[in-house]
Order: sequence, then structure tokens, then C-alpha cells
Amino acid sequence: MENWYAETGPDEDVVISSRIRLARNFKDIAFPARANKKQQDQVISIIKEALPEMNCYLMNDLPNLEKEYLIETHTISSDLAKSKKNSCLFTNDERASVMVNEEDHMRIQSVFSGLRLEEAYDDCLKIERNNKLQENYAFTYEFGYLTACPTNTGTGLRASAMVHVPALVISGKINSILDSCSKLGIAVRGIYGENSGSGAHMIQISNQVTLGQSEAEIIASIKNIIGQIAVLERQERQNLLEKGGIHFTDKIYRALGILKNTRCIDTEEALKLISEVKMGLDMGILKGATTSDIVTILTNVQPACLQKIEGRILTPDERDEARATFIRENIAKVE
Amino acid sequence: MENWYAETGPDEDVVISSRIRLARNFKDIAFPARANKKQQDQVISIIKEALPEMNCYLMNDLPNLEKEYLIETHTISSDLAKSKKNSCLFTNDERASVMVNEEDHMRIQSVFSGLRLEEAYDDCLKIERNNKLQENYAFTYEFGYLTACPTNTGTGLRASAMVHVPALVISGKINSILDSCSKLGIAVRGIYGENSGSGAHMIQISNQVTLGQSEAEIIASIKNIIGQIAVLERQERQNLLEKGGIHFTDKIYRALGILKNTRCIDTEEALKLISEVKMGLDMGILKGATTSDIVTILTNVQPACLQKIEGRILTPDERDEARATFIRENIAKVE
Repeated sequence: MENWYAETGPDEDVVISSRIRLARNFKDIAFPARANKKQQDQVISIIKEALPEMNCYLMNDLPNLEKEYLIETHTISSDLAKSKKNSCLFTNDERASVMVNEEDHMRIQSVFSGLRLEEAYDDCLKIERNNKLQENYAFTYEFGYLTACPTNTGTGLRASAMVHVPALVISGKINSILDSCSKLGIAVRGIYGENSGSGAHMIQISNQVTLGQSEAEIIASIKNIIGQIAVLERQERQNLLEKGGIHFTDKIYRALGILKNTRCIDTEEALKLISEVKMGLDMGILKGATTSDIVTILTNVQPACLQKIEGRILTPDERDEARATFIRENIAKVE
Repeated sequence: MENWYAETGPDEDVVISSRIRLARNFKDIAFPARANKKQQDQVISIIKEALPEMNCYLMNDLPNLEKEYLIETHTISSDLAKSKKNSCLFTNDERASVMVNEEDHMRIQSVFSGLRLEEAYDDCLKIERNNKLQENYAFTYEFGYLTACPTNTGTGLRASAMVHVPALVISGKINSILDSCSKLGIAVRGIYGENSGSGAHMIQISNQVTLGQSEAEIIASIKNIIGQIAVLERQERQNLLEKGGIHFTDKIYRALGILKNTRCIDTEEALKLISEVKMGLDMGILKGATTSDIVTILTNVQPACLQKIEGRILTPDERDEARATFIRENIAKVE
């Protein structure tokens, strides 16, 4: 599978990644929560026949490390990984993949670096528009695409972006933005520690409403809000630099100094310090690495990614040491 | 004046410097606290005549920055710097110097790097044995050399060493050592923040008793105790390394990483981090600099030393920035 994080993308100084997820279900087959094994297999068969070029990985057959790796790279949900059903992932060398028998029969998704929601949507459509799939979709003219949970009914579309907002978090201004998002029907996750990534000053912005708006309207609306957040984040970075002066620059260089020298570091601290270095690079204070270099490091310091790189299961202490080594080697070129 | 800290010395992994101070007063002239201006001048005249090769710097004529610099390099006491009397410093290119009209008429002193109390004592004697001075000393066979404060009477000798004990401080074992010192009549200063240097894990060990023991006995006794502290400190460094493992090494490398990258840093934090880097070098964890390189940095990050290097008066903010630049340039070779 292609790694979205190894690419550059528009607005990548703030927008780490854009993701589109389309929920689809097949008519005349119970939703996964109520489907029996035979019906679950029937779903898989339809998809296999429609998408013969894709590989099917059954969750029950995958080693835990592999599942954790797929969660960390945002390829599957933790619900899919934990599923005892005939849940699986369809994927190949292309960007888009399909989670099968999670909450819905199909969740088609595609992730791109930077602010590229339209590209991610077009990429999902390459799968969604498949004739053999389309003839089976549960669809009504009254409700649109039917889904297991009514909050996804209609377009079945979730457009989301992971945004890197260290300056808004440091200044505390993020809170009023989160309030506004909530009033606009925008969901925000990841800032208050209920999700990994909070230490890295990342938040995930996504639409809550899937009904009553067209796909294009939903995407345009989320894109607009993310664009506004990016503008505010950039302003706040400049504010912090102007107000903090040498103390702000010092904070960024110290983060770099620790990362270049540490011999053991946990995920939380690593994410926080890499986040500060990323801000320094984005602002031109630091040089020598691209945003995608840093997002690649951010991704790979996670426990399962790290163990995939090392090629073996590591104890937490071994991980802290391997993480430090990985960071030192990969951040050496930043100055 | 020669810089003691630019030299190597025995036991320098623990013993930063050795100092001898000899208090001497002239007979038939009131002690400085009671002497009038004329008598203070008389003291200076005797010394000038006896030591024509030395330069005399009157405290009242010295700029504040120069006085602070002399205090930071342990050349004069802060009492001498603050004195409104005709107090002065006699010094030349040699190691030994003389504070005049501080608490006593003469305080001859010499500082050497490492554990070299005998050398420092011999160096003081080069001045003390001067015939023209000796014929004026206030001396009785009952009390020995008379001094303004009875605690200095007898030999007038203070033998002291600045010892670097980060491992004993980190482990807390320093406390029982301080208790023992106190029972043995050994004075300890600098650990609880009443003196600069506490952040750098430095303590000053010196004799309290000057009477009833010969000079050689006092020096041997202090040397013995310092030697024991050095052994305990080395054991504790090994303990910390064995128990702490990678976490101990990590702490040292992080200190180095911050010092190599900081853009502003205050004296207290700089001393603490440089102390950790010194321990790393002494233990062979880090490489690329000698102990005297590090002690030179430790000395020069102090405010007045830093301003002497910069050649101008700096505000506190400017000092923090200049200190960071000075450290980065001088610690770059450590790895």
C-alpha cells in the first residue's frame, strides 16, 4: 500500500492529511451487527468478485502487530481490528482501501497528505463506482445510502483532516475554535487525550452531518473550515514568534537538541517534541528536512510501526530505546 | 593572572579546584575593621615595598564588572569587593594573589585545578616567606598568627576544595556525608543554594579549625576527606549507571543536546546541564573535551565572565542569549 505520509501536499504546514470515508451497505443482507457468518461471507464474496485486483486480509488471521500497525497508519479502525466477525481489509498497491464488515458492509477510504479532500474523494469513487458493487447498494431516493447507524445515512460520507495546530494549542486559542466548530456541526477529536496524537498538537476535524447536503457541499464546507483554521494557526505561529522572540526559537531548538541526542524516549514525549520541530521547519526556523520527512518520523515512532521497522516484538523499554535510535538517525539532517 | 581552570589536575573528575588561604596581620597596626585610613594605607605601603613585582588594584577604583569578574573567578571575596575601606588586590602573572584590608591585613591565596592543596600552599609561601613581610607579622608563640576573627588564629590557614558530586546529590547520599563532615569539624558550603554553584552540584569543603594543628596536618586531613568523597562519588556514578542504565545515559545526552542547541539559557540551568555533561565526560560516556575545557565553560557562563568575553555590559536577557551562543560554540566538539 502506498504511504500517504511520504508525500508532500498543499497546506502541509498545518494539514497533515485528508481522509474520505464512504459507508456503503448491500441490500437484502443484514447490517454486520445482525448478520450471521453466512451473510458476512456473502458480503465478502460480492466484494471479491467486484474487486478481483484487491487482496483480502481477514482480521482473524492477521497477527496483532500487523493490526496495530494498520491502526497506527490510519488504514483500519480499532473496531475492525477487535472484531470477532468475518471482518477484513481489501487493499492493494493503490491508495484506497475497503474495511468490510465493520459497522457497515463496506467502508471505502482514501488518505492523502495535505489538504486534498477532493482527490481523496475521487480516489474512493474509483472503487465506489464499480458496477458490480453499485447494483447491490442499499439505496432509497428518500434517505440516500442506508447505513447501520443513522448518523451516516444519506451520503455515507465522512470527510476529515488531521491538522497540526501547536501554536493554537500553546496560546489556548484552540478552545474558542473548537466551540465554533461544535456550533457549525463539525466534529473535533484528538485534542484532549481521548485519542493518540494529542501530545503532537494534532486534532481531527470532520463533518457530523451526512444527510441533506451533497457530497460536494460537505467536502467544500469542511475544506473551508480547515482552510480557516490553517490561516489562524499560521497567524498564531507568527504571534508566538514575535511575542516570544528568542524564547520561542529556543523552545524549538531545544526540542531538536533532545531528539538528536536522546537514548530513550516514550511515544508521548516524542510526538510532542517532533511536533515542535515540525513547526520550526514549517516556519523556516529549522532547515534540512521536508514536512513529509517529519510526518514519516511522527508516524513511525508509534509502537507498532517501530516494531515493524525493527522486525520483531519489543518490550516497552526496548521500544523507548529503539524509538530514540530511529529518531536520532532520521532527524540528524535537521539544523 | 593565570587561569587555574584552564589546567588539568589530579582527581579532576571530582575535584574542580584546591585553594589555600593564609591570613596574616601586621603587628602594631589595628585590624582592618578598626584601622583608620592612614593605618590602612600603612598596610598597603608595607606590602608594596615587600612585593614590588606585584600590581595593586584598589577596590574603590575598579569598575563593578571587574569586581564581579574577580568574585566569579574566586580571585577576591564579595566582602573585599563591597569594602569602602582602602581595600585592594595585589596580583601579577603568577598564581598567588593577596587581598589587602579585607577582614585581615593580608589574605594570601592560591588556587590550583584538581586536588593540589600542597602545591597551592607552597605557592602561597612564596609570598608569605618574604622577609619584609615576615618581620611585620603579628605572631605570638602562645597563639601563633593573630587574626581579626579568633576562628582564623593559629595557622591562619584555610584549605578548601570545590568538589563536583552530581551522583551523590542525585542519589541523596550527600546528606550523610555532610553530617559526617560536620562532626569532623569540616565546613561545607554551596549545596543548599546559599552559594552559587549549587545547581552545578558543587560543594566547597574546608577546615574549620586553624589552631592546635600544624599546616601540614590540616592540609593532610582535608586532603584525606576530599579523597574519600571522590571515591564515594565515583562509586555512586557507577551505581547510577548500573541501576539507571539507558535512562542515566539518556539524561546526560539530553543535557548535551540542550546545550548544543539552546538559544537562551540562564546561569542556574546552564550550570546544572554543564555539570551533567562533565559527569558524562568524566565517566567516558561522552567524548571530545577535557575536564578543563568544561570547567572553563562552567566558569565563563557566569554573568561577569560572560560580559568580559563580550566586552560590554549586557542586560539579563542579552546575557541569556550570549550565554547560549558561548555554550554552543564551546561545547560543539563534545559527542
